[in-house]
Amino acid sequence: MSDAAPLTEIWRGPMAESVHRGHAVICDASGSVVEAWGNPDATVLPRSSAKMIQALPLLESGAAKARGLTDEHLALACASHNGAAIHTQRVRAWLNDLGLSDDDFRCGAHLPQDSETRHAMIRSDEAPCQVHNNCSGKHAGFLTLTQHMGWGPEYVDPDHPMQTSCRDAFEDVTGEDSPCYGIDGCSAPNFATTLHAMGRAMAWFANAQDGRSARESAAVRLWQAMVAHPALVAGETRACTELMRACKEPVALKTGAEAFFVAIIPGRKLGIALKIEDGGTRAAECTIAALLVRLGVLEVDHPATRRFMNAPITNWRGLQTGMIKPVAGLI
Amino acid sequence: MSDAAPLTEIWRGPMAESVHRGHAVICDASGSVVEAWGNPDATVLPRSSAKMIQALPLLESGAAKARGLTDEHLALACASHNGAAIHTQRVRAWLNDLGLSDDDFRCGAHLPQDSETRHAMIRSDEAPCQVHNNCSGKHAGFLTLTQHMGWGPEYVDPDHPMQTSCRDAFEDVTGEDSPCYGIDGCSAPNFATTLHAMGRAMAWFANAQDGRSARESAAVRLWQAMVAHPALVAGETRACTELMRACKEPVALKTGAEAFFVAIIPGRKLGIALKIEDGGTRAAECTIAALLVRLGVLEVDHPATRRFMNAPITNWRGLQTGMIKPVAGLI
Repeated sequence: MSDAAPLTEIWRGPMAESVHRGHAVICDASGSVVEAWGNPDATVLPRSSAKMIQALPLLESGAAKARGLTDEHLALACASHNGAAIHTQRVRAWLNDLGLSDDDFRCGAHLPQDSETRHAMIRSDEAPCQVHNNCSGKHAGFLTLTQHMGWGPEYVDPDHPMQTSCRDAFEDVTGEDSPCYGIDGCSAPNFATTLHAMGRAMAWFANAQDGRSARESAAVRLWQAMVAHPALVAGETRACTELMRACKEPVALKTGAEAFFVAIIPGRKLGIALKIEDGGTRAAECTIAALLVRLGVLEVDHPATRRFMNAPITNWRGLQTGMIKPVAGLI
Repeated sequence: MSDAAPLTEIWRGPMAESVHRGHAVICDASGSVVEAWGNPDATVLPRSSAKMIQALPLLESGAAKARGLTDEHLALACASHNGAAIHTQRVRAWLNDLGLSDDDFRCGAHLPQDSETRHAMIRSDEAPCQVHNNCSGKHAGFLTLTQHMGWGPEYVDPDHPMQTSCRDAFEDVTGEDSPCYGIDGCSAPNFATTLHAMGRAMAWFANAQDGRSARESAAVRLWQAMVAHPALVAGETRACTELMRACKEPVALKTGAEAFFVAIIPGRKLGIALKIEDGGTRAAECTIAALLVRLGVLEVDHPATRRFMNAPITNWRGLQTGMIKPVAGLI
């Protein structure tokens, strides 16, 4: 079993001050590993990088069609959003369409990551609602399917049919039984698997064909919705949004907490999954950008690329003190 | 050369989701390594963990005495403070005593880490001043010595006598020539050394005797000032402050950016230095708490210990989803 490999370095002046290690795989149509760094067999929790998989039952069941969900809804169902107005207005309208309220969510409330919205809420002493939770789009999807099926309200319980549907889809597209789960920040179970299996699942999305099965049709619809609405998947300045916009061809990107990142690259029939061992988000963002450059779907000198890879680190007086960059040989 | 060793784990449900590796040393009166994890010879930037060393020239020169600096001033000179009122009021008064203004600082401005103060500033649209910079106490010390000596105003330039004095003191107490430097977040040079040398420097502080030399007298005065005023060294809820208060005997603790941490333990004549390889602060805090427990100067079940070590991780609904804990065998 290989150990975690150095993937991203933080330089200050003439030296590497910090180093992030991790595991990364690129998988092909057969689900095989084309290239790997670190240990493909590492057991991981994909966290929000699994949201496209958690949205499959919403489509396969017919609930999305019955409720008239658009690509915007589906992009939000796969999102870890900033809680900016473009996200919360749409999720509130979605809840309203279902005849439900913020109290029906089970994701918990937190202040939005979007600094303009957050500062406005602090100024007006407005407490965050559950709709501000970065996972509220996923939960609106859970509520849609739950309502459509007539299931009970505690839709995040691991034994609730909403979550057993997610687990079944997850085990199918990863091609492995999930050994265990953790409870996510938004209270839903998050199923463990191997990094290779997450790469295989992303390659399955990349190779899915509309009409071949309900599951494959759902997969195509989801990655296309993400690519069509990159701002809904995360938000302005965020890596998923900025890098999806920058890619030279359609690529669906999704981050996850504790430094997970996945990519679906339909034009190359490839999937990527990576986990930074220490949970450092800055390294997950730098490493996914590097692998997209390596595969030729992202330009090394695109301004968005340089926000996350080879990005200058500046101090409080605006002086450049260092740089975040991929390890030699990664691109 | 040994590699970075696993030191802190982030658990979620039944599995370790993330792991932080790093280097740590405990040094004795002779400067020798008593215990080590990872590579004691790793070249490191101690960042703000070097502030006690950067404050030595202020005392040795006679400037602190001539300007009537108290233990509160000296604790602030060693601080990475929260920017709460207890810090900024004292630093403003110190500047005023020198007949200087915020514009004389060269540290840059940023919003305070203290959330109450930060939110109040956002509510009132108050822009941060340089006094809010977490390093403003160190810079007030730099300005005090610079004024006392009649040096020029650009006191953060690496060739300025303020910084060459710091380098001389740094190389003396670490016992090694510094191979290079990086520019710190506050614009001052931060000198590189080995982790062993930083542990040696902390052991030198722990073994310093008042009256044996101007430098040793300065060292004693500084750690005593830190121990006397833990809230000035960082702030409420911060690891340095909470763990100094919790220790069963006088221990001076100081964090540094990119996951550095040092401890001066005069009663045991020991010094500790540690660097988490990936720069993850949560792991530096957990690991220093674990080593203090290991040495018997901190109780494992003290509430402050459990904020940083074996701390529950809760989600947005308040459910415990995991735990941050030291690797097996560390305590």
